[in-house]
Amino acid sequence: MTTRIRPSVRALHAYTPGEQPAGEGVLKLNTNENPYPPSPRVAEALARFAADDLRTYPDPQCRELRERLAERHGCGPDQVVVGNGSDEILALCLRAFVRRDRAAGWFDPSYSLYPVLAAIEDLPARPVSLTEDFAWTDPDLGEADLFFVTHPNAPTSLEFPKARIADLADRFSGVLVVDEAYVDFAETDCLDLALSRDNVIVTRSFSKSWSLAGARLGYAVGPSELIGALFKIKDSYNVSRLAQTVGLAALSDPETFDARIAAIRSTRGTATDALRTRGFWVADSRTNFIWTRPPAPHRAQ
Amino acid sequence: MTTRIRPSVRALHAYTPGEQPAGEGVLKLNTNENPYPPSPRVAEALARFAADDLRTYPDPQCRELRERLAERHGCGPDQVVVGNGSDEILALCLRAFVRRDRAAGWFDPSYSLYPVLAAIEDLPARPVSLTEDFAWTDPDLGEADLFFVTHPNAPTSLEFPKARIADLADRFSGVLVVDEAYVDFAETDCLDLALSRDNVIVTRSFSKSWSLAGARLGYAVGPSELIGALFKIKDSYNVSRLAQTVGLAALSDPETFDARIAAIRSTRGTATDALRTRGFWVADSRTNFIWTRPPAPHRAQ
Repeated sequence: MTTRIRPSVRALHAYTPGEQPAGEGVLKLNTNENPYPPSPRVAEALARFAADDLRTYPDPQCRELRERLAERHGCGPDQVVVGNGSDEILALCLRAFVRRDRAAGWFDPSYSLYPVLAAIEDLPARPVSLTEDFAWTDPDLGEADLFFVTHPNAPTSLEFPKARIADLADRFSGVLVVDEAYVDFAETDCLDLALSRDNVIVTRSFSKSWSLAGARLGYAVGPSELIGALFKIKDSYNVSRLAQTVGLAALSDPETFDARIAAIRSTRGTATDALRTRGFWVADSRTNFIWTRPPAPHRAQ
Repeated sequence: MTTRIRPSVRALHAYTPGEQPAGEGVLKLNTNENPYPPSPRVAEALARFAADDLRTYPDPQCRELRERLAERHGCGPDQVVVGNGSDEILALCLRAFVRRDRAAGWFDPSYSLYPVLAAIEDLPARPVSLTEDFAWTDPDLGEADLFFVTHPNAPTSLEFPKARIADLADRFSGVLVVDEAYVDFAETDCLDLALSRDNVIVTRSFSKSWSLAGARLGYAVGPSELIGALFKIKDSYNVSRLAQTVGLAALSDPETFDARIAAIRSTRGTATDALRTRGFWVADSRTNFIWTRPPAPHRAQ
């Protein structure tokens, strides 16, 4: 039997998304969602949303949302692109910035989607092992056109030293994509690098800190030349009217956002202390999840 | 200055989406949207939607929506994949089925997005000119791995003879993607080809006939092997909870759908007759738009 599927796609081990169990009685931890609901403004915006407006296409440029994000981050709207989740942005970065004969890299362990995205595009993979303590190691990025840094990292929950990230950006001829899906729970972020270097893009997600995983909304900030390339290759109408509406509603309520981030950090501290008291090893989490190992003879399984 | 943008992306003339004007007083024709609002069930579903559910990720498999679509089309759910608009599905088809050294083809004129998608992927383009009357010509598909047939075609509003499409599928070693964005306004469709041939995929959109352009929802039907390949490379959570919800609500009301299709066909007939009475040339539209030329000395501009 012949196959009509491209060889790299046929050979692909697809990314396994976290299961979304139906029904009640499950305390769901597997995809690091926010335990709190989104801002009440989101419910209000949905209640006000005129379903008849779904008849027409959304704004392909996401102008209003990009203006609000640009204000929030102190940059121009031409330095912001919005995606159908930040996963879409990560895939677009590989397609926009990595030439066919060049490689893409990332730390190991980090987000398990990167190798899948590179395999889909037939790009050579350059995973760089972290130290035994999951700490930064300086990657040798010879023939890579793009490197992903997950900051803070998942699944380790740890931040990298920002000076090392800045130094890597300055030494690297390719594009450094700093994936900041969890950064709102961290101590430092790399947004200023994206606004001062010509080769750094920061990606952000509404899924974790804004409690909007179900709406699919993410964005990237960076130099307008690179952001413009992502615009060129994204699906024209990649962000629905509903997603743009709930994103704007959430952004209009930074007070609720700040309060929930503070609550999650507090719970994280309490849970870390309680586990350590019981003999668990627990990393100093800078995310909304905890990386831990139970005391012997117990095992995580 | 060095550039970090992949050469084909740098050279790309991006697809220009139809403008979405703000404000009142504009009779908007440029993106062939539906003049009627979506089913009242869509508004009811949005009113019932619990915003707190946006906290968690959507079903990455779109199981319920695929089951309803499979029932509607008399196939298995493994023969259906749902996308963030059918534009996403068209792009995925190129990425899944066209080898790096092979070409992709389409009729000229047809949907102006195809050449842009092929250029993004660095794929050689094989546009095939229609006759002067915009009728079918048998394409020579030597080294192509994929061919798009827009049925009915845009911007011509015309159907192709279905026997020619079936014959092309039988002769073609690659994947035939029949883009049926406008098919609900037509006389024939190719769904049975997608369910009987191992190399035919039909794509459908909720944007036109279901009045849900703003929600971003499309899907493909075809042999499970090909559909499975699209599943492997799509973004995991490509369809939001809100889009899945409004899609299910619309599908639950086929009566409203049928009534609006009938109304649009009727208006199309009235408008065609009125224009012809005034000396316009008008194609026999099988879509929700009209392809026309005014009598001399008038010009469309």
